[in-house]
Amino acid sequence: MADALETSQTYILDANKRDMSGARSKGLTDAMLDRLMLDAKRLRGVADAVRAVAALDDPVGSEIARWTVPSGLDIARVRTPLGVIGIIYESRPNVTADAAALCLRSGNAAILRAGSESLQSALAIATALRSGLEGAGLPADAIQLVDTPDREAVGHMLSGLDGKVDVIVPRGGKGLVARVQQDARIPVIGHLEGLCHAYVDADADPEKAVNIVLNAKMRRTGICGALETLLVNESVASNLLPAIAAPLRDAGCELRGDEAARAILPDMVPATEEDWRTEYLAPILSIRIVDDLDDALHHIATFGTGHTELVITENNSTAERFLMDVDAGIVLHNASTQFADGGEFGMGAEIGIATGRIHARGPVGAEQLTIFKYVVRGTGQTRP
Amino acid sequence: MADALETSQTYILDANKRDMSGARSKGLTDAMLDRLMLDAKRLRGVADAVRAVAALDDPVGSEIARWTVPSGLDIARVRTPLGVIGIIYESRPNVTADAAALCLRSGNAAILRAGSESLQSALAIATALRSGLEGAGLPADAIQLVDTPDREAVGHMLSGLDGKVDVIVPRGGKGLVARVQQDARIPVIGHLEGLCHAYVDADADPEKAVNIVLNAKMRRTGICGALETLLVNESVASNLLPAIAAPLRDAGCELRGDEAARAILPDMVPATEEDWRTEYLAPILSIRIVDDLDDALHHIATFGTGHTELVITENNSTAERFLMDVDAGIVLHNASTQFADGGEFGMGAEIGIATGRIHARGPVGAEQLTIFKYVVRGTGQTRP
Repeated sequence: MADALETSQTYILDANKRDMSGARSKGLTDAMLDRLMLDAKRLRGVADAVRAVAALDDPVGSEIARWTVPSGLDIARVRTPLGVIGIIYESRPNVTADAAALCLRSGNAAILRAGSESLQSALAIATALRSGLEGAGLPADAIQLVDTPDREAVGHMLSGLDGKVDVIVPRGGKGLVARVQQDARIPVIGHLEGLCHAYVDADADPEKAVNIVLNAKMRRTGICGALETLLVNESVASNLLPAIAAPLRDAGCELRGDEAARAILPDMVPATEEDWRTEYLAPILSIRIVDDLDDALHHIATFGTGHTELVITENNSTAERFLMDVDAGIVLHNASTQFADGGEFGMGAEIGIATGRIHARGPVGAEQLTIFKYVVRGTGQTRP
Repeated sequence: MADALETSQTYILDANKRDMSGARSKGLTDAMLDRLMLDAKRLRGVADAVRAVAALDDPVGSEIARWTVPSGLDIARVRTPLGVIGIIYESRPNVTADAAALCLRSGNAAILRAGSESLQSALAIATALRSGLEGAGLPADAIQLVDTPDREAVGHMLSGLDGKVDVIVPRGGKGLVARVQQDARIPVIGHLEGLCHAYVDADADPEKAVNIVLNAKMRRTGICGALETLLVNESVASNLLPAIAAPLRDAGCELRGDEAARAILPDMVPATEEDWRTEYLAPILSIRIVDDLDDALHHIATFGTGHTELVITENNSTAERFLMDVDAGIVLHNASTQFADGGEFGMGAEIGIATGRIHARGPVGAEQLTIFKYVVRGTGQTRP
């Protein structure tokens, strides 16, 4: 598949040019055009990502557990593919290859539905991937792309096509994911929002707090693991908040504070209730002063979206309580929320970060695109 | 909870009498009345089952895996509760206690919806369970029972109550489960059908084949793990089929065969296409002669429901191919399909056997009623 992407370079880049000119005439923003654009270097990156997935261990057939029961039966829980995975995504053309490769690595078939702006690129990439499959002696139909921009096609996928699609993975903005979660009649693995919090505890190391908050907010502001709300213990706020705020402001971050935070830094924008509910995906940080750990836990339980939550403290019992009590896919102690990523977790690649409660949470890699069966080996046992 | 069930005996048995008299006036069959009926002995059994669940290990907080990544982060995948589990079931009053106990054991809250025939018994049992929770210093609302037979309540549960219910577990007949799977807007863990097959291979041990098939079909015919279709390799059919058939007939089993099977045992009822699709849950067995393993695999792939599938052979490579290639929650080698049960698997208790492809397959015990989160412990890491 990776080789076929590279040998199809002219074909894929031509298709991408058609998408780009269509997108320009629709008046897409420069940022959107940049996401859509492919060139030789980016396409090599797409192929290399497929090679990285190919290098992952095959999860299918691996034993998760094995035990013997008193009847003498030898029972193993063994990983199997999920089946047919429907993936609905927006404009980045690389998703076509990434998602298809990850599904194939875990033994699944993929039905891909690209955004209309990137449909020509996606079709060209899918054609290359399918020829790569055939060249490897595998069925091309393990990867299928919906070849129409017709929105009805999404409805059909979300209905499960009479049991033929086992799970839907939406990849894109909140609007897309919310629609998929609303309309799907089959299970959805996806993330709706990453409204991530950091709680700076009374026992936080000041230097760690400054560095981690800056990185969590500003390394990349548009990713789902970016920090959106900072909670600072009131006992250290007057000392720590100015030190945390200065490099954020230097980096161009707008700070919005509650009344107590603004008592310390009066030139902050006042934060409203709406701020606690907002995933900015932008250089904006809302800041609230909290009474203690319980107050922080309560704020996170109220406004968190189950994505990634962070505690900064040198007090291990505070840290452990936060890690156990906070209900989110990823809970962190003294490390940036920007580590919320399958690659950083050692999974090699991810199809997204799940914020639901069923099947998988956090980064969804090849292993999480499997289910299991029980393999039971007997020697003639009948049940009394 | 178990103690409270026993101290509430009079109250619960009185409520059950009201259900029984209502059921009699509705003209329920004796079998249905027997399923609904509680007496002191049965109630002790219900309490003992709750004690058995209480004795299980607590899955919440246990580490499924733990590793360190190059950035130095220590990452653990830790079990957490699923959240709020909605359970929709039919007439057996013991399900109220079994399901509530299993949900509580795995840290979940349960919203229970009993069948209208058993509503008074279920209400009395739920009241006892809730008082038991309070006595143990736990919130009574961890177990809630819908106190109306109004069918709209089911619709509300299936909608997820605005995100307040995380998963639905239907327990009951095919009609109930199909309705739940059709209408639910949230994930469903359940089993629709157990159309279980046994494939008797050319290398089957005759004695094992005779004993296992008899047990798989006739030990209890009404359970989801009961055998429904027998596939016999044509090279051994003329020898083996009569030996397998005799004890089945002695036990009162009706045999329905395809043409090739009837060429060996002409007095069988002819099997039609409909038989291959039927979960009898009765002393009836459909029998087909197959050419070879591939033919058996094809039949199972066509008609199987993903519940439990069995191969009987002394040839290990045949067995391993069957175990790997058959796509079902449970695949067995040389042991009765009636072992398809959480208790027999060493899980202590089960809320059912899942035939879906998401989250869990096979027996669903306390561990399968959990999900996980990633607990990440750092020392100040920021992401480059």
